[in-house]
Amino acid sequence: MDGSNLSLIDIGDLHLKQGDGTRQQALFFAIREKIVKGLWSKNGKLPSTRKLSQELKVSRNTVITAYEQLVAEGYLTSHKGSGFYVAIELPEQYLPEPIEIKTKTPPGREIDINRAFAPGLPDLGSFPAAQWQKYLSRHLSRTCLLGNQDIQGSWALRCALSDYLASSRSVHCSPERIIITSGAQQALSIAMMVVLKPADKVLMEQPGYAQMRKLIEFQKYQFEPLFVREKVGFDVEAVTASDADALYITPSNQYPMGTTLNTEQRGQIINWAVQQSRWIIEDDYDSEFQFAHRPYTSLQGLAAQMGCDDRVLYVGSFSKVMFNGLRLGYLVVPESLVEDSLVVKDALCGDSPTHTQEALAEFITEGGLLRHIRKMRRLYKTKHEQMSLAIEKYLLGRVSVISQAAGLHITLKWQQGIDEHEWTKRAEALGIVLRPMSYYEHPDFQTRDWHGVVLGYGNVALDQIDALIQQVSQLFEESVF
Amino acid sequence: MDGSNLSLIDIGDLHLKQGDGTRQQALFFAIREKIVKGLWSKNGKLPSTRKLSQELKVSRNTVITAYEQLVAEGYLTSHKGSGFYVAIELPEQYLPEPIEIKTKTPPGREIDINRAFAPGLPDLGSFPAAQWQKYLSRHLSRTCLLGNQDIQGSWALRCALSDYLASSRSVHCSPERIIITSGAQQALSIAMMVVLKPADKVLMEQPGYAQMRKLIEFQKYQFEPLFVREKVGFDVEAVTASDADALYITPSNQYPMGTTLNTEQRGQIINWAVQQSRWIIEDDYDSEFQFAHRPYTSLQGLAAQMGCDDRVLYVGSFSKVMFNGLRLGYLVVPESLVEDSLVVKDALCGDSPTHTQEALAEFITEGGLLRHIRKMRRLYKTKHEQMSLAIEKYLLGRVSVISQAAGLHITLKWQQGIDEHEWTKRAEALGIVLRPMSYYEHPDFQTRDWHGVVLGYGNVALDQIDALIQQVSQLFEESVF
Repeated sequence: MDGSNLSLIDIGDLHLKQGDGTRQQALFFAIREKIVKGLWSKNGKLPSTRKLSQELKVSRNTVITAYEQLVAEGYLTSHKGSGFYVAIELPEQYLPEPIEIKTKTPPGREIDINRAFAPGLPDLGSFPAAQWQKYLSRHLSRTCLLGNQDIQGSWALRCALSDYLASSRSVHCSPERIIITSGAQQALSIAMMVVLKPADKVLMEQPGYAQMRKLIEFQKYQFEPLFVREKVGFDVEAVTASDADALYITPSNQYPMGTTLNTEQRGQIINWAVQQSRWIIEDDYDSEFQFAHRPYTSLQGLAAQMGCDDRVLYVGSFSKVMFNGLRLGYLVVPESLVEDSLVVKDALCGDSPTHTQEALAEFITEGGLLRHIRKMRRLYKTKHEQMSLAIEKYLLGRVSVISQAAGLHITLKWQQGIDEHEWTKRAEALGIVLRPMSYYEHPDFQTRDWHGVVLGYGNVALDQIDALIQQVSQLFEESVF
Repeated sequence: MDGSNLSLIDIGDLHLKQGDGTRQQALFFAIREKIVKGLWSKNGKLPSTRKLSQELKVSRNTVITAYEQLVAEGYLTSHKGSGFYVAIELPEQYLPEPIEIKTKTPPGREIDINRAFAPGLPDLGSFPAAQWQKYLSRHLSRTCLLGNQDIQGSWALRCALSDYLASSRSVHCSPERIIITSGAQQALSIAMMVVLKPADKVLMEQPGYAQMRKLIEFQKYQFEPLFVREKVGFDVEAVTASDADALYITPSNQYPMGTTLNTEQRGQIINWAVQQSRWIIEDDYDSEFQFAHRPYTSLQGLAAQMGCDDRVLYVGSFSKVMFNGLRLGYLVVPESLVEDSLVVKDALCGDSPTHTQEALAEFITEGGLLRHIRKMRRLYKTKHEQMSLAIEKYLLGRVSVISQAAGLHITLKWQQGIDEHEWTKRAEALGIVLRPMSYYEHPDFQTRDWHGVVLGYGNVALDQIDALIQQVSQLFEESVF
């Protein structure tokens, strides 16, 4: 035990109760109560007698006597020249009740979300953390950034982002139409809440992004499935015949089936939205990473070319081009929805962290983000090739790859063989994440007669892909029973 | 113009359309379209001819010829040894339409939230930014923190916080019952959504915290006012007679009237909630700062002593003990509500930024937070005294201070004299924020026959308080017309 204040106790709301005898007795009881209830950590250091007497406006002798009595009865220990500490072993009659003892062991549920093949992760080790730290540090010393900020997000970041989105994705926007959010999930929830009333109907891809389904369920919107078939995508007629109030889609790389909508299909959907006053929520979550061809133009950009982007809300994320823990996303809304969107953001969440926004703005304008994306595009392309090769090598004839060469995941399909949940379960035992296709489906609308899993390769090391695919292929092999 | 890539253009979704003549012509048109539409920034640097030919899989000559034609027609400028740039002056016939021009001037609405006397701000200049940067830097290099994390928040932070809350505020909690949120507003919205159904009734202090009223309005809960009188607070009978489903209160320092509930009143409210199965949402937003006496025990802690903390949700913020731009808050819920609360957080927002959570955990366990709070308590106490003196000096007999000596604000009341809105307006012209009492009231339940304003002094320099109060007192003086 040293004199450091690693566990210095804040006396907090300690006060002397009336009727607890003398002041010295009252102090004894007040401190004993804190200790007995487990409110003060074992081995925590108490304030010096001088300090406590000042704080409580009692004489120093009162404090000294109370401390000494607590030592005598075993609630405190005293260390010469160092001070008084809460005893590690309390007198038996006053052990805190079991309910008060904090276990302080991490929770049972395992955090498997960053393990091998977990979808949705970029290559975390390749992120230029030192460079990012430099950008953050520049802004951490700016006192003005410590206060409250614009609920819509940093102006600098919105300017940088509007340039980026226009040039990279042909998104038609201005900083005034961008809302920075604390993660893309918040962007999705604001988008939905701003255009939908309770019990409104949402047409959503099935299979599709599970986080959107959670949102629909939580908000008690009606769910209408838009069935997605491998390679083909969904029938545009299913959209144009729908009476849904909003359509949620991932048009550039359908998640998780990996299909894309062509320009004609996009045009038909935009026309449906405009003519029938419906809303389109475009989730453009990973379109920076296309390996077989140039990225597609955003649906929002096409709508703008047609002069009707006022029915499209565009959602993006920095989780894949930067990293997940950053928790920044954005929403591009029609001008008519800006104010309403800010009302939602203000009521539900308030503004977003300031330093990371300013650092990101500079990272973008100084070219750091584009350089990182280009580097990652090459890396993911190589990883995708490696994944395809390994799957061909170990799983040929048993599964087929149905997703396009894009993004950070590969989607497998098979008809004969192991049940997808069984395969998932076996992989889990090895610490490998195979996301079963059912994860992406609304349970009330499951019509599949095949099995599927999604494998994220963003955060898997290139030189481990072969071995990992070999491992999971061996689990596919074994008989089910 | 130098060769730096400050404005290097990402070619993004650039691709050659079928039917646009030769590949060289198609490339010319594709680039011209990007420039004419304003999608590529003026003076932005294009990729080198070598790079672009690789990216688009066309011959390098095709790119060179297209670039030269664009230079000849005035869309690009060429700089020897440096490369090609988007022209600053475009050929007249192809100027972007006005609607496409981004103004890039900051928005008109002024961000006055950090100006003199703006409530809700701590002393931003006193925050140990360099020390905080050190803590952040330690964790920024940890690759594992870049990925997804526990939706409930960092385990280290929840452990540190549970110690802090137990010792400082007698809150009865364990890390398992704490949910870290992206700001206290998110904690409030999760708390409300987890216990209330649409159209449920909320009993809320009037005047009270405006951000809670926004949430009630947005979620379309019924609003029932709980009238707060100066010095006295609200009638507990108004609570026990209410059929509201939830009660939202700031028991330790009613915002903005500055009253407190005594232990007996708290006990009655807790009994009401338990016996009638109602919910109490306790907002303990600034109780670290009490100047006249020891801080009160939290209502949640008292409920736990009574063995019935399963009806209390406790909300806290790091905005005042740390800084607003951090955007971290927390929610302590009964065990029975943990899972449901996480469902809400997952659906609406996802997890919270990881690095700031880990840095904060360490800042707390190493004693930095307590040291900072103690230092700030002394500073705010002095500021509060200075405020009281200046108000007595310049406004004696015209206004009275009704708030207790606590927190980061002072509440003024007067009956004869200037209208509160008029005073606010005049102060605004000088860049000073006086928050009118009406700001804290539901407009449908305004029954006041007096005027009031709230002055935040957290972020006002000690040596400016006198001059600022003198300034606003002169505005009080002038006749209204």
